[in-house]
Order: sequence, then C-alpha cells, then structure tokens
Amino acid sequence: MRSNHADEYTFLELNSVQWTFDNPPKILVPIANGTEEMEAVIIVDILRRAKANVVVASVEDKLEIEASRKVKLQADVLLDEAAKTSYDLIVLPGGIGGAQAFANSETLVNLLKKQRESNKYYGAICASPALALEPHGLLKGKKATGFPAMCSKLSDQSEVENRVVIDGNLITSRGPGTSIEFALVIVEKLFGRKLALEIANATVFASP
Amino acid sequence: MRSNHADEYTFLELNSVQWTFDNPPKILVPIANGTEEMEAVIIVDILRRAKANVVVASVEDKLEIEASRKVKLQADVLLDEAAKTSYDLIVLPGGIGGAQAFANSETLVNLLKKQRESNKYYGAICASPALALEPHGLLKGKKATGFPAMCSKLSDQSEVENRVVIDGNLITSRGPGTSIEFALVIVEKLFGRKLALEIANATVFASP
Ligand SMILES: [Cu+]
Repeated sequence: MRSNHADEYTFLELNSVQWTFDNPPKILVPIANGTEEMEAVIIVDILRRAKANVVVASVEDKLEIEASRKVKLQADVLLDEAAKTSYDLIVLPGGIGGAQAFANSETLVNLLKKQRESNKYYGAICASPALALEPHGLLKGKKATGFPAMCSKLSDQSEVENRVVIDGNLITSRGPGTSIEFALVIVEKLFGRKLALEIANATVFASP
Repeated sequence: MRSNHADEYTFLELNSVQWTFDNPPKILVPIANGTEEMEAVIIVDILRRAKANVVVASVEDKLEIEASRKVKLQADVLLDEAAKTSYDLIVLPGGIGGAQAFANSETLVNLLKKQRESNKYYGAICASPALALEPHGLLKGKKATGFPAMCSKLSDQSEVENRVVIDGNLITSRGPGTSIEFALVIVEKLFGRKLALEIANATVFASP
C-alpha cells in the first residue's frame, strides 16, 4: 500500500524572521463554543509534545465549551485570567462559531493587537484568519491562508493555495486536515526542524 | 508549494464484508485518563460530520478525563450507562494510559467480546490494538496494525506497515497522524467512498 503522506511537510515562508523567546515558549490557545475541536486539540497536543508551555483559555464565561461537533472541552483558565500575562505566541483554532466569539472578545482582540504591534508571534487556522484576524486589521500587509470557502474574505488572496503560510510573525493554515502540518511548522519555527520531524514520526504523521 | 497529501487516502482491506446497520449507525467511542486526545477527537468529529450517532463514554468514574497531553475532555455519558445499549461499531482511541484503562474495564472488554462474537464492527488505533485488543484475544485470526513501537506485541505482524487495515469486521490504525485516514475509512465502510471524499475535502485533508 502506498502511504498517504510525503515524508516531510512543507510550507511557504515569506519575510523570514528568527522567532525568539524565553524557553519554554508560552503559548495561548483560546477556545470558545463552536471551536473546531480537531484543530484546537491537535495544536495543543503537538505543541505540548514539543514541551512548549501551552495555556488553553476559554473566551466564554466558563471553562467548559461545546466545540463545533459537540465534543466537550475544558479550558485550563478563563481568558480574563490568562490575559494577565503575555505570550510568545497566540494561536487561534477555527470553527465558525469559535472564530466569531474570538472576533467579539475585546480582551482577545487587544491581546492580538499587542502581539502584532510588539512583533510577537500569532497565528490562526480555518475560519479564524477571515473571521477573527481580517476584520480587526490583523492581516494588514500580510500574506495568509485560511479555510478554502472563506478565502474570498481575505484582502490578499495571492498565497491562499498553500497549506501553511508564514509571513514574518504571522502563521496561518487551512483546516482540520492541515492542523498537524500547521502545528509542526510552529514547532519548527520555535525549536527547529529536527524536533518537528521527530514529532512527525512519533505521531505517525510521516510514515515511520 | 507541493501539497503534503495525495488526493485520496488508501487502506488495506482483507476478508471484505459489507458493513450493515440501521441508519444512522450507533458508534461508541470510549475515553479514559491518558487517552490520546487527537485520536479521540478526530474520530468523533469526522464520524459526526458523517451524521453517525456517536456516543463518547468515560471508562473512569466521572465524565471528565485528562487526556495524554493534559487536554481535558468531557464524555457524554459514563460507560456503565452507555453499556445498556448495543452499538454497530466500537472504536478505541489510543494513548498508553487510556488503552490500559480499556483493557482493565470488564464492562468494555465484555462489550468488545460481544461485538466480535456477533460479527459486529470494532476498531482500535495506536496503543489500543496491542494493549486493549490483543491481551483479550480480540485480534485472534486477524491482521491488524498499531502504534509502530508496539507492533511487536501483535501476534500477526504481517500487515503492520499499512496506515489503516480492515480485516472483516475489525479496523485498526497506527497513531494520531493516521487518525483522519482511519476515520475516513470508517466513513467509507459505513456510508460509501463518495461521502468520505467529500469530508476529506471539507476538512482540507485532501487538497481542495
Ligand atoms: Cu499512542
């Protein structure tokens, strides 16, 4: 049988900068009702395998959220609590309802704007580039990708065909089926390609 | 940029039988402390996208479990409650701690044995073929695959290199990175390849 995967993932990187941070990097992953559960969980799991310090924060008024396909996830903290510290990277999972909740959270939008202004790292996948980042000017001057049916909402659509796009301090991707690649590219930017490939093998993403 | 995926997933099928069931099929996905969260969530999400009736049941004495990378998931019901009805398919996610909890659950092992004896469908991924199915004779006479580092525990290792293996009413797979393929193959067996490919596209697993 033929494997479905190439041995290595690939991505497009523009305006390459070296991502710097205190080790371990502190990463915020917000979740809300309607968050795509595969995307949220894959991002958190892979980044924790890389030994990042990942905080899962609920944008709702309680820790439990009901994700897009009714999987119930429990956040580590509420966003208001999480927002008291700063993060090396903020990553938004997709899911339409979740992305809309992110766009409507003043606390989260302010954190993201601060992230952009201070040249720190932020990322989004699936519905979140179009619904959470674009309306708040968080994609201005940047190439990005997102969920195929929503890419018409991006002001610059020239690189949307890529499964993962990095433009300087921004990283974006397309959907549940690109989430492992998205998380592995984040691992590569933070810790190098060697660890990312080790995790690709350990999770049987790449064929052993 | 080259895509990382072939347009279609593939799998090995032996002793092919047509899977039959009342529509929608009723599917049990047990979870426990130590369950691999990517595997559990991907299986549930994809099968719910296919409109299967998926019940997530906790093998622990409460609904909340802490998964292998500390993601907190909440089951729909406790297994004792879930065990009062029968299922068309039972699918075990992996994760070492979770797989061991499955192997130690008399209720779950009895459900699986009944499943096998009545020619109904059951499946497992990652650590679960070796740790939960094999010790209870649930792989007897069957070709299967599993997490690479654990395949030495399988009595028949002749087809372990495949990412997804179906042998009659049993379906097995290798790890988090093969979970989408595993779930799509289940969708194909239940609902046909057309729907499986639609979901592969909708989740951007296959390139659009
Ligand atoms: Cu595993």
